[in-house]
Amino acid sequence: MQLNLHQTHHEIGDFEGIFKYLTTTFQDGRLKGLHLFPELFLTGYPLQDLVLKKSFIEDYLAFINDLSVWSERQFKAQKNESIALLLGGLTYQFDTMGIPLQIENVIYLLEPGEKIKAIYTKQLLPNYDLYEEKKYFTPGSGPAIFSFENKTIGLLICEDMWFSHLHEIDPVEQLKNHLENNNMHCDLVINLSASPYHLGKQEQRMARAMEISQYLQCPFAYVNRVGAEDEIIFDGQSFVSDGANIVVVAKMFKSDLLSLPLPKFSPPNKDQIRSLTINSNSWNTIFNTRLSADTLKLNQLKNEECHEIIEALILGIDDYSIKNRISKFSIALSGGMDSTLVLVILKLLKERAMRPIELEAVFMPGFFSSSLSYDLSYDLCQNLGIKLTSFPIKFIHSAIKNAYQDCFRDKFENLADENIQSRLRGALIYARSNAVGSMVLNTSNKSELSVGYSTLYGDSVGALSVLGDLYKSEVFNLALYINQQYKNIIPKEIISRAPSAELRENQEDVQSLPPYERLDPILEALLSLRFSPLDLIKKGHRSEEVIKINHLISISEYKRKQFCPIIKVKPKSFGFGYRVPISKKTFNP
Amino acid sequence: MQLNLHQTHHEIGDFEGIFKYLTTTFQDGRLKGLHLFPELFLTGYPLQDLVLKKSFIEDYLAFINDLSVWSERQFKAQKNESIALLLGGLTYQFDTMGIPLQIENVIYLLEPGEKIKAIYTKQLLPNYDLYEEKKYFTPGSGPAIFSFENKTIGLLICEDMWFSHLHEIDPVEQLKNHLENNNMHCDLVINLSASPYHLGKQEQRMARAMEISQYLQCPFAYVNRVGAEDEIIFDGQSFVSDGANIVVVAKMFKSDLLSLPLPKFSPPNKDQIRSLTINSNSWNTIFNTRLSADTLKLNQLKNEECHEIIEALILGIDDYSIKNRISKFSIALSGGMDSTLVLVILKLLKERAMRPIELEAVFMPGFFSSSLSYDLSYDLCQNLGIKLTSFPIKFIHSAIKNAYQDCFRDKFENLADENIQSRLRGALIYARSNAVGSMVLNTSNKSELSVGYSTLYGDSVGALSVLGDLYKSEVFNLALYINQQYKNIIPKEIISRAPSAELRENQEDVQSLPPYERLDPILEALLSLRFSPLDLIKKGHRSEEVIKINHLISISEYKRKQFCPIIKVKPKSFGFGYRVPISKKTFNP
Repeated sequence: MQLNLHQTHHEIGDFEGIFKYLTTTFQDGRLKGLHLFPELFLTGYPLQDLVLKKSFIEDYLAFINDLSVWSERQFKAQKNESIALLLGGLTYQFDTMGIPLQIENVIYLLEPGEKIKAIYTKQLLPNYDLYEEKKYFTPGSGPAIFSFENKTIGLLICEDMWFSHLHEIDPVEQLKNHLENNNMHCDLVINLSASPYHLGKQEQRMARAMEISQYLQCPFAYVNRVGAEDEIIFDGQSFVSDGANIVVVAKMFKSDLLSLPLPKFSPPNKDQIRSLTINSNSWNTIFNTRLSADTLKLNQLKNEECHEIIEALILGIDDYSIKNRISKFSIALSGGMDSTLVLVILKLLKERAMRPIELEAVFMPGFFSSSLSYDLSYDLCQNLGIKLTSFPIKFIHSAIKNAYQDCFRDKFENLADENIQSRLRGALIYARSNAVGSMVLNTSNKSELSVGYSTLYGDSVGALSVLGDLYKSEVFNLALYINQQYKNIIPKEIISRAPSAELRENQEDVQSLPPYERLDPILEALLSLRFSPLDLIKKGHRSEEVIKINHLISISEYKRKQFCPIIKVKPKSFGFGYRVPISKKTFNP
Repeated sequence: MQLNLHQTHHEIGDFEGIFKYLTTTFQDGRLKGLHLFPELFLTGYPLQDLVLKKSFIEDYLAFINDLSVWSERQFKAQKNESIALLLGGLTYQFDTMGIPLQIENVIYLLEPGEKIKAIYTKQLLPNYDLYEEKKYFTPGSGPAIFSFENKTIGLLICEDMWFSHLHEIDPVEQLKNHLENNNMHCDLVINLSASPYHLGKQEQRMARAMEISQYLQCPFAYVNRVGAEDEIIFDGQSFVSDGANIVVVAKMFKSDLLSLPLPKFSPPNKDQIRSLTINSNSWNTIFNTRLSADTLKLNQLKNEECHEIIEALILGIDDYSIKNRISKFSIALSGGMDSTLVLVILKLLKERAMRPIELEAVFMPGFFSSSLSYDLSYDLCQNLGIKLTSFPIKFIHSAIKNAYQDCFRDKFENLADENIQSRLRGALIYARSNAVGSMVLNTSNKSELSVGYSTLYGDSVGALSVLGDLYKSEVFNLALYINQQYKNIIPKEIISRAPSAELRENQEDVQSLPPYERLDPILEALLSLRFSPLDLIKKGHRSEEVIKINHLISISEYKRKQFCPIIKVKPKSFGFGYRVPISKKTFNP
C-alpha cells in the first residue's frame, strides 16, 4: 500500500483553491494508494465564528457538493484503481429553522465514483489556551476504522492522541478495545492534525506517536497542517513511525508531499521501548507544571532553536502579508536590538520569497536620540542593502510642546513629553505606511509587553508582532546567532550597548526595570510556569523585584488588550490563549 | 421565612472587601432568615485565567478558610437563631503536584458555628459568545436541595435555568424528577446568577422564571450580580416571583438588598399561565434566529430603552474608572454627535457620582474643520459647564507634511494626509491624558467599527469604548432622547448636520458609505441576525451596498483586533464574544 501525506496550505475558506488542488492533483491518475490530508483541510483552521456564519456555511456546503459531483463523475474514471483520500472537514446538521444543530470535525472519505462521506468524528475537543473547539463542535461518540487494500486503518484527529486528565475518554485505548473486541488488528493508525507550533512540540508529537505505535503494534502516520494563520504557525513536519523509529519526516514550515510504501511494524528494541503514559501535553499547556525548573535563569536558546524560531517568524510574516495582500514593509529603526532583528528577519524573508518584496527603514531621531543610534542604523542598513530614511521629529516635537503650553497654559514635561515622541513616531511610520501601502511590523519584545514598558499607540503600533513571544534575553540570543550565521551582519555595538528608549536624557531601561537577566526568568516563572511571587522570593529572587514585576504585569493588561497579533513560538504567549481581566484587585505576596 | 437577596458588588478578587462585608453585615445578629448572594460572589466574575493563577488560588483559599474560622467562632453566637447564607463561589481539587484537577462553580452554605461547605455545583456551563466556562470548570452531576426552617429549597446557578438545544441535560426537569422520586415538594427555587446585561434580557429572565415557578409550583428567587467588569455590565434587577406575578424587583445597575417574607405560591390565572418551553435564549445569543425580522430598517430605540442604555453606559464608565483608579476624563470633541453624546453621558455620571470627577473637552481643529464644529462644541460645553480647550493641529500638520516631503522626497497627500490628522489628534489627547492623569474615552460607534471607517491609532484610541455597541442611528436616537429629557442641552445642529470626519475638503460620510439609515439595518442583519448577503439582496437591499458592506466588515477585522473594550448593551457586540480571523478569504454572494 502506497501512503501519501499531503502537507499543503490553503487560505481559510479558499474553497476554490482547495477544489482546484484536489481535482488537478488527481486528474491524471498517476497517484495511487491512500492519501491523507490534515485536519479541517477542506475549510482551514482555526475558523472561530466563521463556523457559524451563514454565508461561510453555504459556500462550504456548495463546495462539498461540487467535490461529490466531481468524484462521482470525473474521478470515476479511476474507479477500478486502488485510491482513497482521507481529508479533514466539517459536517453540519441543521434544525427545522436551518440553524446548525450539530457541527462535527470529521474525516471525510473520497473515493472514485462515490459521494464524499464522513467516516469518523473527532472525540477529544481541546478547549484550553487558544483552543475553543467545545464552543463550536459536538464530539464524536466512539472509535472508527477504515479498510483499504485489505488493510485495517485506525482513525484519529489531532487531540484524540493526547489523552490527559483534562479528558474523560481516551480514544487510543478505545480504538485498541474496539479492535480486540472484533478480533482485529490495525495495520496502520493515522492522525490528521492541525497542530500549532511551539518550540519543542515536534519532539512531544513524535514521542507520543511512538508510544501509540507500540501500544497498537502498527505504524503511525501523522499529517499536520502547514502555514500561518494570524498568530498561529502550523509547522507541518508530518511523519511516519514504524514502531521502532521515525521513518520519514516532511519539511518544517513548508508545504510538502510524502509518498512511501506502508512500512512494516518494527518491534522496538530494548532502548526504543516506550510505555503508554498519561500524556501531560495539554495539561502542561494550561498549567505549565514544570515546577522543578530552575527559576533563577532563563535557558539560553541553542543554535537549532534559534534557527527554528527565525524560520517560524519568517513564515508568520510571509503568510500574514500574503493573505492581507501586502508586499512592502516599513520598519521604524531605533538603533536598538529589537527593531534590528525584525529588519534582519525581513531581509531573510525577502531573499527567499517567490514574490517581489520591498523593504525600507525609517530612523526618526528626537532630542534624546544619540548619534550612535543613527550611525548603527546606517551601518545595519548598509550591510543589509536596505534604504534608510532619516525623518527627524525634533521640530515637530517642539511644535507640539509649544502648542500644548500655549493652549493649556501648563508645562509639557515628564511622561507626557516622553510619550509624545513615541506616539509621534507611531503616527509617522503609519503616515509612511498609508503613503506607500506598506505594512508596519511591531518590534516589541515579550519582556516589554509583560511589564507594559511601552507607549500605547507609540512603539506598540504595528500590524503583527514579530518578537512579542520572545524575552529580551532571547532576542539577544537570536541576534548573536544571526551574526554567527551571517558574518556579523548586525553591527556589534547594537548588541552590546545598554538598552534604552531614548525618550529622555541618558535614559536606560535599567532605571525602570531590573536588568533583563533578572527580569526575564521572573517573567517566565510567573507567566508560563506555575509559580507565585512568594515561591520566587523563597527561591532566592529579590523580593522587591518580584513584587514590582508581578504588579506591573497585572496593571498593564489594558495595553496588551489593544496589541496586535503576536507570532506564537512558545507554549504560552500573550495571544488569544491569554485572557486576564483588566479591572481586578492585584495580588501581591 | 425571611428571604434576603444581597445584590452587592465587589471588585474581582477583593477578598478583603467581601470578608468585611459579610462579617459586618452579620455581626450584630439583626438579620435573620435565608440570605442569597450572586453566583461567584466570593471571587467575582468573569475571572478568565485568574481561575488558574497560583497566587489567586492561594489568596482565595486563605479567604475561604478565614470565612470558616469566622463562622465557627464569632458567627457561632447566632447558632440558635434561624439564619443561613447561600453564596456563589469556587471549589478546587488538586492533584498530587498541587495542580487544579477539578474546579467547580458552586453554592456555598454558611451557617453560624459551622465550617463553610459547598452544597451544589453548577451543571450547565455556558460556552458560547463571551462565555467560556467549559474552559475552566467541571460541571456538577445532579440536582440538589437545601432544607431551611422546614422548607425545601431547590438550587440552581445561572445557566442551569436556561435549558436549550445547546445543553444535554435540563437541571430544572432533573430537580422536578428528584423531588417527585423522593415524594417531596419545593417551597422555593433559587437561582444565584452573574448574568450580563443586554437590552431586553430582564424580560427574558422574568418570563423564564415564571415558567419555572409554575412548573415546580413554588416561588422563584433570582439574585443577580451588579456592577461592570471591563466590557460586561451586570444589571442586578434581582427579583422574586410567586408563580402568578413578579412580587419584587431590586434596583437596576445599583447595589440593593431585598428583604421580604417568603411569598406563598400563587397559582396563575388563565392569562398568566406559561408552559415550560425549550428556551431559546442561549441559542439566540449565538445564532440570533430572528429570521423573520424586518431587515429593511432598524427599530428605533424607545424612550425606556434609551434611558436603560444611558444608565448602563454610566455604570460601565464609572466602574471601569473606579477600578482603574482614575477620576479625570479628557474627551476629544469633534462637533459631531458621537463625541457629544459621550461628553453628555460623562456629565450625567459626574452629577451623580459620590466621588469628585473632573471633565474636560479638547477641540483640535485642522485645515478641514469647519468653524461650525468649533461653535457647536463651544455651545455644548457652555451648556454642560465643562471647560473646552482649543488645540489647533494645523501648524503641526503642516510641519509634518513639510518634513515628510523633505525626507522622503515624495508627495504627502490623500489617505496619508487624511489619517495623519486623526493620528495627531489621538497622540495629542493622550499627551493631555499623560500630563493630567486623565482617562481618554473612545467615541466610535458600532457602524464605524463594523466597516472600519476609522483611523487605527487615530479616532480609534481610548481606554474604553462607550458607544461601540450602538449604531449611528441609535446614537441619533439617544441624542434626541437626551435633548427631550434635558431641555435641548445638545445644540440641535450637532444632531441635524451631516456626519463628517472633516479630514478633507467637504468630506461627508455618505461619500464613503451608504447613508446610515440604509447601512445600519444591513449591518445588524449581517452581524447580529442570521442573514447572508444574498438573503438581504433578496429582501430588497441594494446589491452593490450589501456586497460592499460585507466586504468592509471582513477586511476591517485587524482594526477591531486592536480596539479597546466596548461596553456591551446588545446581545451581540464586537467584544470578547466576537471572534473572527483576520486572514481569510472573504465571502461574497
